[in-house]
Amino acid sequence: MTTEQLTNEIRKKKSFLCIGLDVDLNKIPAHLLDLEDPIFEFNKAIIDATHHLCVAYKPNTAFYEAYGLKGWKALEKTINYLNTKYPEIFTIADAKRGDIGNTSTMYAKAFFEDLAFDSVTVAPYMGKDSVEPFLAFDNKHTIMLALTSNTGAFDFQTQNIDDKALYKHVLEISKSWENSERLMYVVGATKAEYFKEIRTIVPDSFLLVPGVGAQGGNLQDVCKYGMNNQVGLLINSSRGIIYASNGTDFAAEAASKALDLQQEMEMILGL
Amino acid sequence: MTTEQLTNEIRKKKSFLCIGLDVDLNKIPAHLLDLEDPIFEFNKAIIDATHHLCVAYKPNTAFYEAYGLKGWKALEKTINYLNTKYPEIFTIADAKRGDIGNTSTMYAKAFFEDLAFDSVTVAPYMGKDSVEPFLAFDNKHTIMLALTSNTGAFDFQTQNIDDKALYKHVLEISKSWENSERLMYVVGATKAEYFKEIRTIVPDSFLLVPGVGAQGGNLQDVCKYGMNNQVGLLINSSRGIIYASNGTDFAAEAASKALDLQQEMEMILGL
Repeated sequence: MTTEQLTNEIRKKKSFLCIGLDVDLNKIPAHLLDLEDPIFEFNKAIIDATHHLCVAYKPNTAFYEAYGLKGWKALEKTINYLNTKYPEIFTIADAKRGDIGNTSTMYAKAFFEDLAFDSVTVAPYMGKDSVEPFLAFDNKHTIMLALTSNTGAFDFQTQNIDDKALYKHVLEISKSWENSERLMYVVGATKAEYFKEIRTIVPDSFLLVPGVGAQGGNLQDVCKYGMNNQVGLLINSSRGIIYASNGTDFAAEAASKALDLQQEMEMILGL
Repeated sequence: MTTEQLTNEIRKKKSFLCIGLDVDLNKIPAHLLDLEDPIFEFNKAIIDATHHLCVAYKPNTAFYEAYGLKGWKALEKTINYLNTKYPEIFTIADAKRGDIGNTSTMYAKAFFEDLAFDSVTVAPYMGKDSVEPFLAFDNKHTIMLALTSNTGAFDFQTQNIDDKALYKHVLEISKSWENSERLMYVVGATKAEYFKEIRTIVPDSFLLVPGVGAQGGNLQDVCKYGMNNQVGLLINSSRGIIYASNGTDFAAEAASKALDLQQEMEMILGL
């Protein structure tokens, strides 16, 4: 999917919502646990109930890997379901991978070819030759961690290198990498005031923004400073939507929470 | 496994060699491709031929994920084989994971509990609350990237924060984290001169050292500056050993390459 197609979907649905599919068997409704593949059944119900309110889904691979083979199988079924039934949806493998050249290529193949995700999240610590292998894939997007929404972000990301925070350094240097137009960035919502400066460095890139809701970020502030004329934002919500209820009404309650966010987004897009 | 047990194994085998099991179906002997699980059969043959010459095996998860479900299954069979047949071997899931708190816990469960590895590699970019969840596991080890052996290491890792390179900052700050005694660090062999300073920061920690051989690092230089009185080094070699031959003699040739390194290590340990 191209970023133009993504922006068109955003305009059409009046939503730039991404729903995080972080499925924890301890949190999903008990009645699903008797099914053969509770993780996939949970995802399927959530997707069917919310696909018209969002433009992206983001399974975090950790939650699937934790269940071994059956988890990986559920991830495969989930992405296949999305690609078959809702091909207009932008898909993100939230994997935060990063390794040396040829090994990064293997990760890229895993997520872009074997699983056919539109994008994957990567970590920047190992630098250019750990990220460029992901950027080599046509019509795929690599979403690099810049400023994350956790408290540990202040350990290294906001430390100054030559009077400039590491995360800004990461943003700037990455622009010189081959196929850098395929980069998007993770920027946490908990620090909305940082978006203004980030937009001076990467005015055109899409930003994937976790931390609205559960982690305390404010949607309107993020949009005020972070939105560009292609919208340029994907706001992620995971637990706040998918665990809105753990009863038999879980999918409907998830849709209700997604609708709240979509309506707020529609209002912002209309301003 | 405790670090004392690891050091004892090193003394017993006169080896601090770690063999990287980075299995690429395009590189393994063609006669294996007809078998039901060529990845596992390759690993099993390599392990059986080399286990007495090394103290650790390190599958890089990228190579397994690239083959989807069958890859993940081969990884599971490989770690089960190691834990059952060679429980004295230290096992490393080279996964370079890192995520926010509860998500890191899911990754830790995936590698420490579901797959029962002794250790996992993690990336430091997201800071303390992304790594501490891994450190909460008793008798398990978390191997954090410090200074990697690729050229991209110079993009961020060696950049100065307050006149101190980021990777040194990473080493120092991590020492204050809870259960930091369970940390080990990845330090690339291509920069042997850096080991001296690294040892002033983390004198007691084990260092996992890639980049000897294929990537050009020199074993004797690394040992000169990096070894401590518990040995404190695991030298990894992947391609140089496992792809020594792609004929039917691949396991014997791998053993021969491993023996060369083990003998060099025995000499160094005897000095």
